[in-house]
Amino acid sequence: MFKYEKMLEYPINVKKKDLHMAKLLVTQFGGPDGELSASLRYLSQRFTMPDEKGKALLSNIGTEELGHVEMICTMIHDLIKDASISELKDAGLDSWYTQHNKGLFPTDANGAPFTSAYIGVSGNPIVDLQEDLAAEEKARATYENLMDLTTDESLLAPLSFLRQREIVHYNRFKELLDYYKEKGLK
Amino acid sequence: MFKYEKMLEYPINVKKKDLHMAKLLVTQFGGPDGELSASLRYLSQRFTMPDEKGKALLSNIGTEELGHVEMICTMIHDLIKDASISELKDAGLDSWYTQHNKGLFPTDANGAPFTSAYIGVSGNPIVDLQEDLAAEEKARATYENLMDLTTDESLLAPLSFLRQREIVHYNRFKELLDYYKEKGLK
Amino acid sequence: MFKYEKMLEYPINVKKKDLHMAKLLVTQFGGPDGELSASLRYLSQRFTMPDEKGKALLSNIGTEELGHVEMICTMIHDLIKDASISELKDAGLDSWYTQHNKGLFPTDANGAPFTSAYIGVSGNPIVDLQEDLAAEEKARATYENLMDLTTDESLLAPLSFLRQREIVHYNRFKELLDYYKEKGLK
Amino acid sequence: MFKYEKMLEYPINVKKKDLHMAKLLVTQFGGPDGELSASLRYLSQRFTMPDEKGKALLSNIGTEELGHVEMICTMIHDLIKDASISELKDAGLDSWYTQHNKGLFPTDANGAPFTSAYIGVSGNPIVDLQEDLAAEEKARATYENLMDLTTDESLLAPLSFLRQREIVHYNRFKELLDYYKEKGLK
Amino acid sequence: MFKYEKMLEYPINVKKKDLHMAKLLVTQFGGPDGELSASLRYLSQRFTMPDEKGKALLSNIGTEELGHVEMICTMIHDLIKDASISELKDAGLDSWYTQHNKGLFPTDANGAPFTSAYIGVSGNPIVDLQEDLAAEEKARATYENLMDLTTDESLLAPLSFLRQREIVHYNRFKELLDYYKEKGLK
Amino acid sequence: MFKYEKMLEYPINVKKKDLHMAKLLVTQFGGPDGELSASLRYLSQRFTMPDEKGKALLSNIGTEELGHVEMICTMIHDLIKDASISELKDAGLDSWYTQHNKGLFPTDANGAPFTSAYIGVSGNPIVDLQEDLAAEEKARATYENLMDLTTDESLLAPLSFLRQREIVHYNRFKELLDYYKEKGLK
Repeated sequence: MFKYEKMLEYPINVKKKDLHMAKLLVTQFGGPDGELSASLRYLSQRFTMPDEKGKALLSNIGTEELGHVEMICTMIHDLIKDASISELKDAGLDSWYTQHNKGLFPTDANGAPFTSAYIGVSGNPIVDLQEDLAAEEKARATYENLMDLTTDESLLAPLSFLRQREIVHYNRFKELLDYYKEKGLK
Repeated sequence: MFKYEKMLEYPINVKKKDLHMAKLLVTQFGGPDGELSASLRYLSQRFTMPDEKGKALLSNIGTEELGHVEMICTMIHDLIKDASISELKDAGLDSWYTQHNKGLFPTDANGAPFTSAYIGVSGNPIVDLQEDLAAEEKARATYENLMDLTTDESLLAPLSFLRQREIVHYNRFKELLDYYKEKGLK
Repeated sequence: MFKYEKMLEYPINVKKKDLHMAKLLVTQFGGPDGELSASLRYLSQRFTMPDEKGKALLSNIGTEELGHVEMICTMIHDLIKDASISELKDAGLDSWYTQHNKGLFPTDANGAPFTSAYIGVSGNPIVDLQEDLAAEEKARATYENLMDLTTDESLLAPLSFLRQREIVHYNRFKELLDYYKEKGLK
Repeated sequence: MFKYEKMLEYPINVKKKDLHMAKLLVTQFGGPDGELSASLRYLSQRFTMPDEKGKALLSNIGTEELGHVEMICTMIHDLIKDASISELKDAGLDSWYTQHNKGLFPTDANGAPFTSAYIGVSGNPIVDLQEDLAAEEKARATYENLMDLTTDESLLAPLSFLRQREIVHYNRFKELLDYYKEKGLK
Repeated sequence: MFKYEKMLEYPINVKKKDLHMAKLLVTQFGGPDGELSASLRYLSQRFTMPDEKGKALLSNIGTEELGHVEMICTMIHDLIKDASISELKDAGLDSWYTQHNKGLFPTDANGAPFTSAYIGVSGNPIVDLQEDLAAEEKARATYENLMDLTTDESLLAPLSFLRQREIVHYNRFKELLDYYKEKGLK
Repeated sequence: MFKYEKMLEYPINVKKKDLHMAKLLVTQFGGPDGELSASLRYLSQRFTMPDEKGKALLSNIGTEELGHVEMICTMIHDLIKDASISELKDAGLDSWYTQHNKGLFPTDANGAPFTSAYIGVSGNPIVDLQEDLAAEEKARATYENLMDLTTDESLLAPLSFLRQREIVHYNRFKELLDYYKEKGLK
C-alpha cells in the first residue's frame, strides 16, 4: 500500500504565469514518455520480477514516479491558476479551458488521452528492464526538449532535477539487468 | 510524494488457481471503472479543490485506491502464477500469455488498453464530486458483478472489502459535496 | 424508431464568423461531455431500465440530445461556412480544413476522436442514473466554460438554452433515481 | 430535431436465448461497420451537402440508421436478458457481465470501444458519397457474415431486412452521387 | 518481401522552411486518409483477393503507397530540419518538439495517433474494392485541401503528383471491381 | 521507394488448420510488439539518424520487417482459409468472421486496433536506438511465448526464424548505439 506525504520530492516555486509551458508540460503528466507512464510501467512489471531485489527496485522507482507526477501537476497548476480568459485564449489554452476549466487532465501535449498502449509488460525481467532503460532515455530526452523551450529558472531547476532522476533510474535498472544476465536469465 | 509500504491494505490469500476469474479481475486494474481509473481521477482532481479539506480527502482516497490497484494485481498474479500452458489455453488466456506471458497489464476484461478517456476532471469541485459519486457507484456495481461470478471465499473476502470501501468513499464524497453546496459553490 | 423534423429545438442565428468558437464548440459535438456522448449514453442505458417510466425518460432525453447534437453542428457550420483560407489559417483551423475541409467531424476540441470510453452503462438503474447526474453536471460546466469564452449574443442565447436543459435533465434524473431508491433498488 | 416513436422499424421476436449471437451482434451496434457508425456518418456529412436534396437524403437515411441501432440493441437485449450466470460464463460473456451486467454498450464484437475514427467526413459531397457507398457495402457484408453464423429464423428475418436496407441505401447514395457528378461536382 | 531503393518515386526539393505546412502534411503520414492507411489497407486486403490479378494489383499499389509515405516524410523533414526553437514556438510546433524533437511520428494533423480503425478489410473483394475507391477519393480530397493551403511551388509539385496517383489508383481499382462484378462476385 | 518481390523471406508451409494459433499470431501483425510496429518505428526514426550509416541500417531493417508482416499474414491466412463456420465458432473466431470474414486485419490478439502509440520516435539517435533494443527484445519474447503454445513444426520453423532475426537486429542496433556513443552523441 501507499502513504501520501504532503511534501514534494523537490520544491516547486513557479515565479510567473507561462501558459505555453503549461501546455507542453502536460505531456510529462499523461503523454507517452511521461511520469504516469513510468509509474504504471514499473508498478505493473514488479509482480513478475524474479526476486525481492527486483520487486523492491521496481516498487521504489514506481513509487518515486508517482511523486514526479505530482511535481509536474504542481508546476502546471501554478503556471495557469491565475490566468485570465484572454490570456488563456492568446496561449491557445481555450480548448483546455473549455473541457477542464483549469483542472489537470492526463493527456499528451496535443490533448491525446493517456493510454496504456504506451507501456510494455512482458512478464520477462530481462525484457522488461530493457523496456525500462528505453523508457528512462525517452523521458530524459523529453525533459531536455522542455528545457530547450524555456529560460525560466524556476522551471529549469525542477526540470533539471527530474531529468537527473531519469539518469539515476537508468543506471539502477542497468545494474539490475546486468545482475540478472549474470545469473543466466534471458 | 508517496511512500510504499510492503503490506497490502487487506490480506490476499488466494487458495486455488482460477484463470477465468483472473481474466475478469483485470478490469478492476485497467478497465473503465477500475482502481487505476479511480486513483488517477482523484489524484488529478485534487489540484483544483477549493480548500485543504477537499485536497486532503481527494489525496487520501486517491492514495488508498493505489493500494487497491495493488490488491487487485496481487489477486490476479496469485490466480495465474502456477498455471500450465494447457490450463492457460483452456481458459482462453492464451492471448494474454502471448502478449504478456504471466505479466500484469492494465486493460479491461476484453483486453482494451486503459485510457484516461474513462475519467473526468472539470476543474469545478461540485461537478468533480458528482463525477466521483458516479465513479464509486460504478466500481461498486463491478465488484458486485465479480462476486456473482465466483464462489471462492478467498476471492469473495477481498472483493467484499473493496466493494465496501467504495461505499465508504461514496459517503465521504457526498459529505464533501453537501458541504461545498452549503457554502454556495455551484 | 426515430423521425426527423426539419426544425431546430431552439433557433440558431449566428451573426458573424468566429472560427475560434467553432473549434471549441466541437467538444459539445464529439467530446467527452458533449451531446453525442449524452445521447448515446441514455439511448443505451434505457434497455436495462426496470420499468416503462425509466425507459420512457431515458428515451425522451436521449432523443432530445440528438437534437442538441444538431444544434451544436448548426452553430459550428454557420460559424465557419464563409471563412477564407487565410482566416482558417489565422484561427488555427488549417488542420481541420486539411482533414475535413469545412465538414463536421465528431472529436473533442483538440481533435481527439469520439470514443464510447466516455460513457458508462452498468445495467443497474441506480448506478446508471448516478452516472447520468454526473454527465449532466459535466455538460453544464462545459457550457459555462464556453459562455466565458464569448461575448457574442447570438451564441450565448443557444448556449444558455442548452445549459439550462442540462439542469432540467439533472432534475428529471434525480427524481427517477429517488423514485427507484424508494422502491428499494440498489 | 428528432422524435422518438415507440415502435421498431421492423418487428423483433427473438425466440430463444443465444448468447454467442448476442456477442457478435454487438458489432452492428458499436463496431466499425455498425449502425451507429452509419448514423453518425450521415448525420455529420449532411451539413456540407450542397443542396436540399442531398441534405434531405442524408438526414433521412441517418435517422433511419438510428432506428437500426435500436433494432440491433433490442435483439441483443432479448438474446441475453434471461441468461443465468452459468450460461453467461459458458458463452464467454462473463467479461461483458463483469463490466456491464446485462447492459448494452457500444463496442465491436471484441469489446473494442466505438470510435469516430471509423467514419469519414470530407466536406466534399462526391467524396462523402463514395465513402457512403463503401460503408453500405461493408455493413451488407457484416450482415451476411452474421447470417452465416445462425440458423435461427427469428434472427435471420430482421438481419435479412437490415441487409436489404443497406442495399437500398447504397442505391439511393449512388443515384445522388451520379446526379452530383452530372452537375459537374468533383 | 520488399526491397528498398534509395530513390524517391518523385523528387522532393523543398525550397524553404514552412513549419505550418509541415504540421499539416503529417496527416498524409499518419492520419485517417494518409499514405500509411492506404498502404496498410491494400497490403492487408490482398490476402483475400480471389486471384493473382487482384493480389498483384493490391500488392503493387500497396507497395507504391509505402513510397508515398517516404515522400511525405521527406517533405516534412525538409520543412522543419533547420527550424530554430523560436520558429518552432511561433508555428505552434512546440508540442511536436517536446515529444519528438524534430523526429517524424505517425499522427494526424492534430496529433492523434495513427489507428488501424481508419481502414476496412472485409475479406470480400467487391466490398474491399468499394472501400478502396472511397479511400482514394478521400486521399485526393486531402491533397486538394493541402494544395489550397500553400503557394510554394516546391510543395505543390509533389502534392500534385501524389494527388494524381490517387486518381490513377482509383481507376485501377474501378477496373478491377468491374471485372469482378462481371465475373459474378458480390 | 520500395519494390515488391513475390517471394517470402523464409518459406511458409502450413500443414494444418489451427484457428487458435491464427488468433494469437495476429498480435505479431498488429499488436504492440509486432512486425508492423517494428517496421513503422524504424522507417520513421531513420529520418533523424545523424549519418548515412544510421539511415541505411534503419531503412534496411525497417524494410525487412515489412517482409515479416507478410510472413505472419501468410501464416495466419493459411491457418484459417479452409475453416468451416463451425470450426470458426468452436475456436472463438466468430467475432473475427463477423467483422472480417477471413480477411486479415491489424489488431492485437484481443482484437484491439493497431495504434502508433505503441512506438516511440524521439529525434535523438541514442534514445531511438535504446527504444529499438527494447523493441527487439519484446518481439523476441512474444515469439518465444508463441512457440510455447504450439508443437506444429510447420509453424515452429518460421517462428524460430523470426525470433532469430530479432536477435540479429538487436545486435546490429547495439553496434550502432555503441558507435554513436563513442562518437560522443548523448
